[in-house]
Amino acid sequence: MDDLKQRAEALDLADPHRAWRDRFVIPDGLTYLDGNSLGMLPAHVPDRVADAVTRGWGQQLIRGWNAEGWMDLPRRIGDRIAPLIGAAAGSVICTDSTSINLAKVLQAALAMVPERPVVLSDTGNFPTDLYVAQGQLRGSGTLRTVAPDDVANAMTPDVGVLMLTQVDYRSGRLHDMADLTARARALGIVTIWDLAHSAGAMPVDLAGVGADFAVGCGYKYLNGGPGAPAFLYVRPGIQHRVNSSLTGWMGHAAPFAFDPDYRPADGIDRFRVGTPAILSMVALDAALDVWDGVDMAVVRTKSRALGDLFIDAVDRFAGQFELHLASPRESHRRGSQVSWHCPDGYAVMQALIDQGVIGDFREPDVIRFGFTPLCLSYVEVVRAAEVLGNILQHRTWDQPRFRTRSRVT
Amino acid sequence: MDDLKQRAEALDLADPHRAWRDRFVIPDGLTYLDGNSLGMLPAHVPDRVADAVTRGWGQQLIRGWNAEGWMDLPRRIGDRIAPLIGAAAGSVICTDSTSINLAKVLQAALAMVPERPVVLSDTGNFPTDLYVAQGQLRGSGTLRTVAPDDVANAMTPDVGVLMLTQVDYRSGRLHDMADLTARARALGIVTIWDLAHSAGAMPVDLAGVGADFAVGCGYKYLNGGPGAPAFLYVRPGIQHRVNSSLTGWMGHAAPFAFDPDYRPADGIDRFRVGTPAILSMVALDAALDVWDGVDMAVVRTKSRALGDLFIDAVDRFAGQFELHLASPRESHRRGSQVSWHCPDGYAVMQALIDQGVIGDFREPDVIRFGFTPLCLSYVEVVRAAEVLGNILQHRTWDQPRFRTRSRVT
Repeated sequence: MDDLKQRAEALDLADPHRAWRDRFVIPDGLTYLDGNSLGMLPAHVPDRVADAVTRGWGQQLIRGWNAEGWMDLPRRIGDRIAPLIGAAAGSVICTDSTSINLAKVLQAALAMVPERPVVLSDTGNFPTDLYVAQGQLRGSGTLRTVAPDDVANAMTPDVGVLMLTQVDYRSGRLHDMADLTARARALGIVTIWDLAHSAGAMPVDLAGVGADFAVGCGYKYLNGGPGAPAFLYVRPGIQHRVNSSLTGWMGHAAPFAFDPDYRPADGIDRFRVGTPAILSMVALDAALDVWDGVDMAVVRTKSRALGDLFIDAVDRFAGQFELHLASPRESHRRGSQVSWHCPDGYAVMQALIDQGVIGDFREPDVIRFGFTPLCLSYVEVVRAAEVLGNILQHRTWDQPRFRTRSRVT
Repeated sequence: MDDLKQRAEALDLADPHRAWRDRFVIPDGLTYLDGNSLGMLPAHVPDRVADAVTRGWGQQLIRGWNAEGWMDLPRRIGDRIAPLIGAAAGSVICTDSTSINLAKVLQAALAMVPERPVVLSDTGNFPTDLYVAQGQLRGSGTLRTVAPDDVANAMTPDVGVLMLTQVDYRSGRLHDMADLTARARALGIVTIWDLAHSAGAMPVDLAGVGADFAVGCGYKYLNGGPGAPAFLYVRPGIQHRVNSSLTGWMGHAAPFAFDPDYRPADGIDRFRVGTPAILSMVALDAALDVWDGVDMAVVRTKSRALGDLFIDAVDRFAGQFELHLASPRESHRRGSQVSWHCPDGYAVMQALIDQGVIGDFREPDVIRFGFTPLCLSYVEVVRAAEVLGNILQHRTWDQPRFRTRSRVT
């Protein structure tokens, strides 16, 4: 046991981003392994939001759209997210939700390959992505899902669009984005990547791999707050010729000309639709300040090390119990999370939460632990595994509270 | 001049909602006639938003989805908006933007009348509504726009959907919702009402008139903050059989079962898509507190009287200048705003703003003044007209600042 703790302490001492922890509000006594569901609150965000409410809204009122820069916030935030995902300025916009954005880019992608209305995805994709595709394809095309490992072989000539989430939300399994995108391009397949569990967790190189479209989430590793606005990416080379059917005034070439006819804005702005939710956007904009001075390669190294240490610690403290690793053991094949199949997983996760270790439960039996490299210390991760071991050691499943199941998000 | 001021003072003294003004933050020296673009900040909202950020997000973190009731916020806010628009509980949901919501209900409406893919609207509709329809109908149907007065006569047998905004965003002209909806129903035409300039400004009776769908805006008369989430209404009798193609996990019957196949929730929840923008929603939820104890009939009476007084005052102070009333003079034919065609309207509005009277300019030549009954006093309205008169009296259009035109929202 002590060697693990010593290893953790040594890793913490050597962590180049150790000081970043102070940029976040860490509730007392909490070990938060759920930043992949909702990122922690950056310490400076409350003041920024309060200012937007009391001064921006309260005093500037309608003038805030210009004076406070609200009108350009979707583009400005997009340009701040861009370097985190290997995108050029002007190729990312922050707007709407991930699901809505996925619908937009899927429409745009399908219109590029009208003779091949088949969308290929995998069974590990997050369900909302599949639901979005089902809605968009209803009556006009086919969604084909295969096992994650079979994606490369399933790129048959009838496939028009490849729609994948890079990191599996349950297992953390990482797709090889460069390889799959290259294969797709060679076959004329349009690519859409969902970066929900990638952006802010690891280096992503959208431009480098030649992805056509991407979407992602503001409230996970980007720490933008509950339900923070999402983002979407469109490859610069195709922006002028793609469109979605979700056309609204904010995506018009001249929103305040009030033309009766829609005319898409040049570039990425055409993927805006309605008026942006400014207060939520201000929080995300402020939260992005934490990335100043961050080296994403270092983030990835720490993320992998946190996961490796946690697996070792769970082996140590809970290895005698019926836990089956649901994630790849090799860290280069994982995102920034580790999961186990665990009998009574829901009850186990509730017990962990009661003891100050917050992770997620995912149906049917997965307990999931996410690692936000900028917030977490190695010592915390070892402690969390120890708590898990104690819970499994002393499990008393006949206690009534383990029998009620409510929604876990 | 004095009789107008006396009339204003007497009206203020007799105003049953006079005390409501204290529920809002009124910036010093500002006469704000733009609550129909962005409503004022209710005084208690900053504390509620700050609490959601620091305690809800910062301390509860992922637990906030249940503990803070975030998951149910779209439905709960919908149920709070419902009585303001004559809707039953369970028939309104707060989500996304007005444009996105309009796309959803338009898809649902069109699917109800597949043999009649013609959408009838009017040329006074807000452009984004027309853009949304253009996007949804592209290649599959027709958008037909007629002059507002011709709508009733344009309900020909080929029309499937009637899509109107009740209050014209420029002129304030009010459609007779009961009459037009009844005519449409008699002809089997599905109705969609945009209540952007109605909700919170006047009584609306969606259930009473039998409207099928409605959408509306959270940031105008509902004072929900810049870009506040919007709402949508679906008539209870059709909720079980209508759907949009924007299908996402929050609209699934069991979002956390993570089924691979989409199955719509019962009722209005099926019109949810992605994760809601909680911080913006918390602001709107808090802002709705100001309606406690408000009689919407009294609001409407005051709204009409404010508009009448303003027209009289503009006649008095600016009647000698080239202003042409763009709104109906009879208050029962107007929403809660009054507009004029005004040469150099943009420059005039800039001068007004510089002198603390905030209204809107709308292309090509419309100066627009909105009246939020709960915030405004009659005395303010007379003063605003006096300032307008002074500006027109002393206009000096050769000043360079009148030549630069920037975006006004």
